[in-house]
Amino acid sequence: MTNDLLIRNVRPLGGVLTDLLIRDGRFAEGSGQKGARQIDAAGQIALPGLVEAHTHLDKTLIGMGWYRNEVGPTRNDRILADRKAKRELGIDARRQSARQIMQTLPFGVTHIRSHVDVDTEIGIANVNGLVATRAAFAGLVDVQIVAFPQSGLLVRDGTLALMEEALKAGADIVGGIDPATIDRDPVRHLDAIFALADRYGKPVDIHLHEPGELGAFCLELIVERARALSLQGRVMISHAYCLGMLDGKRQAALIDALAAERIAIMTVGSPSAPALPLKLLREAGVIVASGSDGIQGTWEPWGRGDMLERAKFLAQRNGMTGDSDLEATADICTFGGAAGIGLSDYGLAPGCHGDLVLAAAETLAEAVALIPQSRTVIRGGRFLVRDGVLSEDLPHVE
Amino acid sequence: MTNDLLIRNVRPLGGVLTDLLIRDGRFAEGSGQKGARQIDAAGQIALPGLVEAHTHLDKTLIGMGWYRNEVGPTRNDRILADRKAKRELGIDARRQSARQIMQTLPFGVTHIRSHVDVDTEIGIANVNGLVATRAAFAGLVDVQIVAFPQSGLLVRDGTLALMEEALKAGADIVGGIDPATIDRDPVRHLDAIFALADRYGKPVDIHLHEPGELGAFCLELIVERARALSLQGRVMISHAYCLGMLDGKRQAALIDALAAERIAIMTVGSPSAPALPLKLLREAGVIVASGSDGIQGTWEPWGRGDMLERAKFLAQRNGMTGDSDLEATADICTFGGAAGIGLSDYGLAPGCHGDLVLAAAETLAEAVALIPQSRTVIRGGRFLVRDGVLSEDLPHVE
Repeated sequence: MTNDLLIRNVRPLGGVLTDLLIRDGRFAEGSGQKGARQIDAAGQIALPGLVEAHTHLDKTLIGMGWYRNEVGPTRNDRILADRKAKRELGIDARRQSARQIMQTLPFGVTHIRSHVDVDTEIGIANVNGLVATRAAFAGLVDVQIVAFPQSGLLVRDGTLALMEEALKAGADIVGGIDPATIDRDPVRHLDAIFALADRYGKPVDIHLHEPGELGAFCLELIVERARALSLQGRVMISHAYCLGMLDGKRQAALIDALAAERIAIMTVGSPSAPALPLKLLREAGVIVASGSDGIQGTWEPWGRGDMLERAKFLAQRNGMTGDSDLEATADICTFGGAAGIGLSDYGLAPGCHGDLVLAAAETLAEAVALIPQSRTVIRGGRFLVRDGVLSEDLPHVE
Repeated sequence: MTNDLLIRNVRPLGGVLTDLLIRDGRFAEGSGQKGARQIDAAGQIALPGLVEAHTHLDKTLIGMGWYRNEVGPTRNDRILADRKAKRELGIDARRQSARQIMQTLPFGVTHIRSHVDVDTEIGIANVNGLVATRAAFAGLVDVQIVAFPQSGLLVRDGTLALMEEALKAGADIVGGIDPATIDRDPVRHLDAIFALADRYGKPVDIHLHEPGELGAFCLELIVERARALSLQGRVMISHAYCLGMLDGKRQAALIDALAAERIAIMTVGSPSAPALPLKLLREAGVIVASGSDGIQGTWEPWGRGDMLERAKFLAQRNGMTGDSDLEATADICTFGGAAGIGLSDYGLAPGCHGDLVLAAAETLAEAVALIPQSRTVIRGGRFLVRDGVLSEDLPHVE
């Protein structure tokens, strides 16, 4: 008996044709034992499992009927509409997160970091829902849970205690949001979440939409705290629009500070928000990850959650059209994401987890540009999706 | 015998459930003669045929293998790479335009305005190719041909004579491009193309990428010529980035001038180019159309050419997420495009051409947000596409 899986005629990251062997759940050298299972990839490209580094699994409305969006234009309008929808629509975080995971699995999304709302109305119900979903998909799709104070932390009494409760209930990461414009006190907001992270030994992931110099100041405060608490490689800043709003010299100084503390940046490449300097960030050694943000919810009505398509969006937002540019954005949605959310043994090299996505394309750049469908997704040597069709032995989703 | 087609249980533009009758190629009142053909739309939304108001059918590389893009960043780099590719790859404008038309027909794109290169290297070969394609698709997909001096008009001796030749060969519209930054002489460039339009009784469609105040100045020159030659309703400005780069007062003055001469604006909503003030333009009565620009070519490697997806991109670029916003961008990709490129009897009302697209969605906004596939496309009562599958009696495309 052998549990080897040999993937023949495959092109890792669009490179030369080869075979890939998965043994005991990991990539291995060699061509496998006699009688091993085989699949002919017919020249398809192999990517490691796609990494969704920033979404909101608990709030998608997939399968719940159309939500008529009449929400006002400010972030606060949206936060209010969001809480109202949770009350009135009864969004079940467990069910909805499972729906999104099953929607994005055929694309090859095998690793997901989800921010999950914690507030004084719903308490930690959504975190509990996500903990259940995480368990249901264990070994299939990895889910990281960020306890996320969407409605503010200090401005809403009791939220901080709920954040702590969320960590005890199983949240993996301490979240934060706009310490100035939403929470109205950048220093105390950041002190609170970094103290929590320090006490529980957890990483930090902060939504930072603050514009221009205000954002830069908050970013500096984050850098100072990462340094003081030796959290190098354990802090991510999501969105960080300020990096796309400042002059070159100021931008460069912030980028250097991020690199020094190994703080990762997550950007979705939104067409209507400032574009981040992807090339400069990566050249300076800053880890850049990407994500879909919320899909099909009250914030934004669209979103498929395909991280290969996301690589295209990143390139489009940055006016990048060359093949090497598209290879870079593909890297952001795979290796960048993996480094950003702290995955180990990620990739297609021997010893790495045997996770991969097969996609039909001549080159990696073509895969980003044309987003081939009907992919095959393999996790630890097990087929989760074959030519776009989900396996029948996956968790049942209502 | 009857050629009536009754489309039952359909929701025009997402409205209430009704039946639509097509008689002798046009929408008509009533429910059709006994024995008329019927189709049950099962509650799908009906849109009139989608309007592609700006593409480059002659230069798509669909089906030609992956083009490795190592093109430099400037517009001139791209123009040079474009001419080189035409020489070296031997892009057959007739074949390639047919391929794009067949790719976008299942989306419901039934009307296309294509800019077609005219230059001193290829002469009017591409226009001739498009004339052949236009004939092959007559009555199925309408194609308008813009004679387009991609490489410049005055800066390349002989181009103006070729433009005139293109009109004689069957081009419908006089094109132009960046009278200042590319052609280096805004007044003479515009005088030349407007004179040509006047002499041949043709509309004008000008690519205007010129930034800021330079763009505004060129736009004013266009307005002056449209007024002098009484070309109200016959001039389109494509891209017009300057409208998204000026302060509110200056912007408003330009918008008023466009409205006064009934000059249409075409925007693709590119994520890396300035966003146009869609709402202000429409509120002022300016016709706004949209298009895919070049798809899968040397300029940009991506693009599907789905004008329903384009409505989504327009909303995303403008930070529009509400249902009424999405309805507005759907309008731009249908009625706006039709008005912009001068279609008559367009729409779903009795008397209009019997062209429609059926798409499965609860609301028009949902159709824009989620871009349902497997559409049905009907032209003049004839099925061109049923549930995403092309009819077998369409022109053969190599």
